[in-house]
Amino acid sequence: MSVRHFVGDQSVANTPDQDRGLAYGDGLFETMRAHDGDVHWWPAHWRRLERGAHALGIALPDRARVRHEAQALLDGAGGVLKLIVTRGVGGRGYAPFDAISPHWIVSRHDAPPAAPADGLTLRWCDTRLAVQPALAGIKHCNRLEQVLARAEWRDADVDEGLMRSTEGDVVSATAANLFVLHDGRWTTPAVDRCGIAGVCREWAIDALQAREARLAVTEVEAAEAVFLCNAARGILPVARLGARVWRPHPQVAQLRRRLAAEHPAFATEVA
Amino acid sequence: MSVRHFVGDQSVANTPDQDRGLAYGDGLFETMRAHDGDVHWWPAHWRRLERGAHALGIALPDRARVRHEAQALLDGAGGVLKLIVTRGVGGRGYAPFDAISPHWIVSRHDAPPAAPADGLTLRWCDTRLAVQPALAGIKHCNRLEQVLARAEWRDADVDEGLMRSTEGDVVSATAANLFVLHDGRWTTPAVDRCGIAGVCREWAIDALQAREARLAVTEVEAAEAVFLCNAARGILPVARLGARVWRPHPQVAQLRRRLAAEHPAFATEVA
Repeated sequence: MSVRHFVGDQSVANTPDQDRGLAYGDGLFETMRAHDGDVHWWPAHWRRLERGAHALGIALPDRARVRHEAQALLDGAGGVLKLIVTRGVGGRGYAPFDAISPHWIVSRHDAPPAAPADGLTLRWCDTRLAVQPALAGIKHCNRLEQVLARAEWRDADVDEGLMRSTEGDVVSATAANLFVLHDGRWTTPAVDRCGIAGVCREWAIDALQAREARLAVTEVEAAEAVFLCNAARGILPVARLGARVWRPHPQVAQLRRRLAAEHPAFATEVA
Repeated sequence: MSVRHFVGDQSVANTPDQDRGLAYGDGLFETMRAHDGDVHWWPAHWRRLERGAHALGIALPDRARVRHEAQALLDGAGGVLKLIVTRGVGGRGYAPFDAISPHWIVSRHDAPPAAPADGLTLRWCDTRLAVQPALAGIKHCNRLEQVLARAEWRDADVDEGLMRSTEGDVVSATAANLFVLHDGRWTTPAVDRCGIAGVCREWAIDALQAREARLAVTEVEAAEAVFLCNAARGILPVARLGARVWRPHPQVAQLRRRLAAEHPAFATEVA
């Protein structure tokens, strides 16, 4: 892992004291798959970052400068590039005014493991996602719900956990979006009340002409096929959810091949 | 402002890279009124910190060491002492395992202004508090709702904003708890679904034999008297909420005198 910090357009050595990201989670992040020194889905990641910055009233650093620093850090390699943008230092207590220079951090990490060929094993999480339309969809840094949900199991045989909202709708996995197939039609949970509008989710909605809707637990368990996705790992077939078992589905395999053809980082993962 | 950082029992210069507090708001904080080099309500603050650490599964640093460092930083003076404890560095993504040494930060700040003699002016905030029992009551570092609520007004004549839950109940101000008087009985909103169990709130519940209950907007507007409170500023009489005006109430004045008699930092503020 290597990391660089900036405040506005200035390079700095560390997280500044009184950074609002540390105090309140007052920031946004993107986790991006890199390949050959660049981020293939950069435009989509930046668009989501802009939506989040608009929702929170956070000033973004210069886009070209961020991409330049990201490429410098990648230095021709791949892996995962993480970008955090906090509101920076300033304001009085919660009041965010006068915190004008964002603190931003780029860091490079190893690529995550490829999707297991035989599919993921999932569980249901007890921790719920609170319904909060003002924060839904954006990838902000208030992530205690995901931390609590992911802390529910240490069993290495369980790969991910599905989360419901406090109202009972299925929303997503702790760190991936969810798609389910019924009667030839793909559905992914709407993220207008809670959850994150993932960049790979956006790609898959377009690729599958999927619909966004509220989704019940029974609709997941009755699905003909299920996959998870995120921008770091791509399309992740699901094989098990508790006692429910799914066989590999040709539509999921086809989608993985399509992603491999469009996104160079995933090309090597599909034989 | 002066500040010191520690990881476990080691002094460090800065926030470590990949601190989970910055990444996810994966931490807790306390904002404590200090006087003559010590924190009068230290036991109550530490108790709340322990409740939060238990809820989040965060290891706390050694209590005596934290208090020692806090007193060293205060150096005989008063003001406000802030303590942040994050889960530290470690884990994989949201998974919090192996993040064993908490990062903790003590910082000293000037005392906030005393409560205005003629009472605070409040407004209603549009930003709601999401219902999330798993995080309710504790003072964790996921505070975007409060930041968004406090960003709703820049009018210096408005001192604080009242927040409702997504279900419509009145919960608190952005940075203070709320008490209302009806027929001689004080009520403060329950904080088992959202909101923070404030240390001054706990003191006031005991002092007033107040009840904790769900509270409707109409019950606030119909109250005979209203005050806010927090551990940094004590008891804050409320004079206005939109068009509603309250005259100074003898029970609020009496409570302020009682707090002044019990907590030395507030003794000078009540003539």
